[in-house]
Amino acid sequence: MSAFSFELVKEDARCAARAGIIHTPHGDIPTPVFAPVGTQATVKTMTPRDLRALGATLILSNTYHLYLRPGAELIARLGGLHRFMGWDGPILTDSGGYQVFSLQTLRRVNDEGVVFRSHIDGSTHFFTPEKVIAIQEQLGADIIMPLDECTVPYDYAYNVQALARTHRWAERSLAAKRRSDQALYGIVQGGIFQDLRIQSARFLRALDLPGYAIGGLSVGETKVEMHQVLEWLHPELPRDRPRYLMAVGSPEDIFECVARGIDQFDCVLPTRMARNGAVLTHRGRLNLRNAQYAADPLPIEESCLCYTCTTFSRAYLRHLIMADEITGLYLTTLHNLHFMLDLMRRIRQSILDGTFVEFKTAFLADYRPTANAQDTVQVLPEHPAKDVHHPDEVTSCR
Amino acid sequence: MSAFSFELVKEDARCAARAGIIHTPHGDIPTPVFAPVGTQATVKTMTPRDLRALGATLILSNTYHLYLRPGAELIARLGGLHRFMGWDGPILTDSGGYQVFSLQTLRRVNDEGVVFRSHIDGSTHFFTPEKVIAIQEQLGADIIMPLDECTVPYDYAYNVQALARTHRWAERSLAAKRRSDQALYGIVQGGIFQDLRIQSARFLRALDLPGYAIGGLSVGETKVEMHQVLEWLHPELPRDRPRYLMAVGSPEDIFECVARGIDQFDCVLPTRMARNGAVLTHRGRLNLRNAQYAADPLPIEESCLCYTCTTFSRAYLRHLIMADEITGLYLTTLHNLHFMLDLMRRIRQSILDGTFVEFKTAFLADYRPTANAQDTVQVLPEHPAKDVHHPDEVTSCR
Repeated sequence: MSAFSFELVKEDARCAARAGIIHTPHGDIPTPVFAPVGTQATVKTMTPRDLRALGATLILSNTYHLYLRPGAELIARLGGLHRFMGWDGPILTDSGGYQVFSLQTLRRVNDEGVVFRSHIDGSTHFFTPEKVIAIQEQLGADIIMPLDECTVPYDYAYNVQALARTHRWAERSLAAKRRSDQALYGIVQGGIFQDLRIQSARFLRALDLPGYAIGGLSVGETKVEMHQVLEWLHPELPRDRPRYLMAVGSPEDIFECVARGIDQFDCVLPTRMARNGAVLTHRGRLNLRNAQYAADPLPIEESCLCYTCTTFSRAYLRHLIMADEITGLYLTTLHNLHFMLDLMRRIRQSILDGTFVEFKTAFLADYRPTANAQDTVQVLPEHPAKDVHHPDEVTSCR
Repeated sequence: MSAFSFELVKEDARCAARAGIIHTPHGDIPTPVFAPVGTQATVKTMTPRDLRALGATLILSNTYHLYLRPGAELIARLGGLHRFMGWDGPILTDSGGYQVFSLQTLRRVNDEGVVFRSHIDGSTHFFTPEKVIAIQEQLGADIIMPLDECTVPYDYAYNVQALARTHRWAERSLAAKRRSDQALYGIVQGGIFQDLRIQSARFLRALDLPGYAIGGLSVGETKVEMHQVLEWLHPELPRDRPRYLMAVGSPEDIFECVARGIDQFDCVLPTRMARNGAVLTHRGRLNLRNAQYAADPLPIEESCLCYTCTTFSRAYLRHLIMADEITGLYLTTLHNLHFMLDLMRRIRQSILDGTFVEFKTAFLADYRPTANAQDTVQVLPEHPAKDVHHPDEVTSCR
């Protein structure tokens, strides 16, 4: 009897939106859920008590990063990842596949696994599906992910080849798994190709996994293509399992993807944006570095109830950011996470109330995803490369 | 009738230690007090709610830094420094004299004032005693300081000349002051010279100021010399006014200086040390970067009740620091400030109980100020130069 299960509470009558509860050994996760990203065993600038106060119910961490530093064995010896990072709520560890396949330097893949070089010290390492499961069993997250081969969205031949490998690796991961208190999701791949995506969903569905992730999106394809993939997958994925769209997203993306049946999200967007001085509001993003906020006595958003907005002006926050004060990064991160987590609670309530479609329409009518380069930031999952502030990153938000 | 006053509650029978209360428009400050340093209108990594929870009763900020960025007029327009930084407790602003006289580049002093170049953009500025008072009136701190000429401790001729100027500037500062809700302290200077120190105390005492600061210590003289200066000044300073030793100190220094009659301290030590990975314990400092803590499951200090110690291991804190995670800087800062503020509360209670001498002896018997370069950090007041982490700084802690 698994400690993990998904309870489908309500399905929207007019779109594919769902409200549910993921039960885990470390507590319940009401869905749809947005998981803040804590790549290196901490959500950047936050503490567990901050995350608890914000109402976070699921935190993401990363196998690749923790394996390299401080090491999974060390974390196991210290009682596992929950105890190590002081977070007793649910945790998901990503497999590290995305990070390894993002490395620009040495990286060789064959059917057995993938050889890569540490971004920290250049040392050589070998990940197999079995090893990645073993590492995640040492970490002890509630939800774990299999090693997969991450591709580019538009190369059919490459996606055919990689998908076969990803499927074999999923089987091997399942066979290697020993702990019964962790839920191993499958990761649907297949780029932007309908036949591959459907093939992937059917293959993984046959493995009867407790949850299904959708990988290989938010990596450069268009929004229309991303939505199309979700629409293809909707009838293919089991209704009674959570659906996790990896590395998405922005507020506008979340509405569109919830409407297409997604239950679970993660993205570095709110935290990374915050460290670049960009904050979320219901009218879109503000970049607090802009001179127009230098003497602005208003909070980021007047209706916001977070500590940052109830205490500080935009002028003060801008001062902290311009003066390179860490407190500024903390306060903007706190606001952005509050914005996202509060939005998810309201989305879930609207599904329960049967008003999701109206809420979505009203929100998107006010919200302007800024096209201004100053107000956009890189939101791909965290690369191995050291996380620094990249005010110049202008990659789009999918 | 001033909103500022000093209430002497208890004097130790066996040494010069005193317990008191400084009453200010923004609340009471039980003394002896340690003021965390918030140079740029924030104590680095902390928020006002953190400081309140830690029991901070006085925060230091800096005229030079705030004048340059974001500007005193801007802060005034936004309601003053308390409102700007979200801290409704007492604030002291230093005059900026130390910062200006620390500048390596253009700096010219004459009787009128001092010309200097901004460390931020190289622009030229002119500080006079009157201007520094006007800036501090725009900021609105509860305790303000006059512009003084900061010297080197061992040059008699220079100290004679600078002291005369510092005294004239103190008179001009007092004459320029208009706000009645701010207390202007005097700053006793005079290097390590008995005649100059006594002359300075007598001159400033004649001005009948609400508090007296001791400047020009903790700048390179020996500990014996620092203690000697305090002993010369003890009978010269009025019993019924608070005595503020600027830029001190470490736990061991605080005990020695409380024993010599000091009521008020500030120092960047606990916060700057923390950002270098060094933490305070009752047995001395630990540098969490040391490999010996990599797998250490203990908290920084087992008896400590701060959030950091009740939640996280040394191994986790070390991981955060080695991985350049901001959360690590926050958690070590929180601990070090808790350590200092809790120590001050216990020192004050011991004075009230008549057991200060025993407490001092017991504390210093256990506490080892580490001579190891790895475990020491620069603790001079914050220079204009951008504050960065200097793990290699090995200046002593006075």
